[in-house]
Amino acid sequence: MFEWPLRVYIEDTDAGGIVYYANYLKFFERARSEWLRTLGFNQQVLMQQGVRFVVRDLSIRYRKPAMLDEEIITTVEVTARTKAGMTLNQRVIRRSDSDINNEPSFIEVLAEAEVRVACIDETGKPMAIPGQVAEQIQPVPQEQS
Amino acid sequence: MFEWPLRVYIEDTDAGGIVYYANYLKFFERARSEWLRTLGFNQQVLMQQGVRFVVRDLSIRYRKPAMLDEEIITTVEVTARTKAGMTLNQRVIRRSDSDINNEPSFIEVLAEAEVRVACIDETGKPMAIPGQVAEQIQPVPQEQS
Amino acid sequence: MFEWPLRVYIEDTDAGGIVYYANYLKFFERARSEWLRTLGFNQQVLMQQGVRFVVRDLSIRYRKPAMLDEEIITTVEVTARTKAGMTLNQRVIRRSDSDINNEPSFIEVLAEAEVRVACIDETGKPMAIPGQVAEQIQPVPQEQS
Amino acid sequence: MFEWPLRVYIEDTDAGGIVYYANYLKFFERARSEWLRTLGFNQQVLMQQGVRFVVRDLSIRYRKPAMLDEEIITTVEVTARTKAGMTLNQRVIRRSDSDINNEPSFIEVLAEAEVRVACIDETGKPMAIPGQVAEQIQPVPQEQS
Repeated sequence: MFEWPLRVYIEDTDAGGIVYYANYLKFFERARSEWLRTLGFNQQVLMQQGVRFVVRDLSIRYRKPAMLDEEIITTVEVTARTKAGMTLNQRVIRRSDSDINNEPSFIEVLAEAEVRVACIDETGKPMAIPGQVAEQIQPVPQEQS
Repeated sequence: MFEWPLRVYIEDTDAGGIVYYANYLKFFERARSEWLRTLGFNQQVLMQQGVRFVVRDLSIRYRKPAMLDEEIITTVEVTARTKAGMTLNQRVIRRSDSDINNEPSFIEVLAEAEVRVACIDETGKPMAIPGQVAEQIQPVPQEQS
Repeated sequence: MFEWPLRVYIEDTDAGGIVYYANYLKFFERARSEWLRTLGFNQQVLMQQGVRFVVRDLSIRYRKPAMLDEEIITTVEVTARTKAGMTLNQRVIRRSDSDINNEPSFIEVLAEAEVRVACIDETGKPMAIPGQVAEQIQPVPQEQS
Repeated sequence: MFEWPLRVYIEDTDAGGIVYYANYLKFFERARSEWLRTLGFNQQVLMQQGVRFVVRDLSIRYRKPAMLDEEIITTVEVTARTKAGMTLNQRVIRRSDSDINNEPSFIEVLAEAEVRVACIDETGKPMAIPGQVAEQIQPVPQEQS
C-alpha cells in the first residue's frame, strides 16, 4: 500500500473548522500522482504522450473530520485492473501515537473511497494502459469485508 | 426538482482544459445551499442554532466534462428522508438548444451523484432534522432505473 | 463601473469562519470574465484565437471579511489602458440596506485591488489587445485620492 | 531565509495549463504556516489562545508560470516587524540544475510578493505579537534593489 503524508492548511478548511468535503478528492489525487511518480511515471510526460488517467466514478465515505494543522496520510491501493482502467481503494488516515508505553500507534480512518480510473487518449477515448505502466500496477488481493 | 444555473470559470478548470473533478462537489454544495435558501433556510443561521448538514457519503459518476465558460445547471432532488438525514440525487447538466426549429432543447448529464446528508448538532452528534425544515423536505417517489 | 453579484458559499470560507484570502482573487476573475462577456467577448473563444489575458501583478488590500452566505458584489473599473494591457480597479463590496426609512443603502468595501492585466499570444509573448476588444475598453478618468 | 518545497498538482493548474493565479497565495500561506511551525508555533494552538495572523494587504508580481508536476520552492523572509505586525517578502522559485558540470544550480523567480501580516485577537482587533513569537521573528536587513 502506497502512503503519502500531507499537512492540513487553512486553504483546506471551511467555516465549520474542518477540511472541506471536496478537498479530500484533492488529497486523493495528490497521492495518486505521487504513487505514479514512485512507479516511474510523470503525468505531465504521459499527457504529452497522449495518455491521461481520469476518474470515471468514485464513492467516498466521510468518517471523521481532518483538522487544521494536523498531519494526515493518504493511501493508494489497487484493488482491480482491467485493460483500460483500474480500481483503487484510497483512504485518508490519522496515525496517532499511543499514550501507553510500548504500545503501537493506532490508525483512524477519516475518509475512505473507491475510485475507478480510466486511461484515455487525446480525443478522450478509452485506451489500453501503456505496457510499461500496466506491468507496474499489480492489484492487491482483496479480503471480504 | 430544484435547478441552480452556474457558469464555469477558470478557477474551476485544470490543465486538462476541463472542470477539475473535485469541483463538481463544490457545484453540488452551492446547489444544496440555494435549495435550502429557497425553502427558507440560511445555513449561517442554522449553524448559529447549532444545526448543521454534513455529507456522510457520496457516489459520483463523471460522464462528460464541463468546459470553460459554459453555463451548466446543478440539480437537487430528495430521494429519501429519515429522521436525521436525507438522500439526494444531484446532477450537473448541460441544456443545449436544438438546431432544428420547433424542437425542444435536449439535456446532457455531465455528472451524477447520490449524496447522503446527515443533520448534526454542535458536538457533531446526529440529531433529528428540525421540524420546520423537515416538513419542507419531501422525497420524490423514485422510478426503478 | 461593472458590478457582478455573487454569493459566499462554504467552499469560499476557511476555519477562521470568513472568506479565505486567496478566494478574493477568484471573485475578481469571475467579475473580469463576466465584464468581458458583457462587452461581447468569450475567453474560451479568445483563447482559441490565440489571445489570452493574464494578470501580471496585483495589489490587494483586505479591509473587512466577507462572511458565509452573504451576497457581495465584485466590481471592475478600467483605470488605464496601453497597447498590450490595462489596469483595473476591482473591489469586493457589501451593499447594506439602511435601517432608517428613506435613507439610501450604504456600501462597505471589503477588499480592494489594483490589477494589471496583459494580453499575450499563444507563445506567452505580449501582443496588442485586438482592435474590437480594445475599442470597448475605455478607461475611466481617475480622481486623485 | 525560510524555504518550503512543494509539488504542483492538477488541482493547482487551470485551463491555461499553468498554476492558477490565486493559488500562489495558497503556496505563500503554506510556507508561512511551516515557517511558524519551525519557530515552534502551531496556528491551531495560537488560534485557541485567541491569537491570529491575518494578511492585511499584499502585492504580487507574476514573472513566469509554474507548471504541472514540477517541484517549486516557496520562501519567507521577514523584512520589517512592528509591535502588531510584520512585512514578509515571499517568493515562488524554481531551482534548476545546471547542464554544465561543476556549475551551481540557478534560480528563477516565478512569483514574488510583499505581504503585510497583522496580529489580531478573537474580536478581530489588532494586538501585540505575543512575546515568545515576536522574539523569534527577526527582520533581515534589506539591501536596496
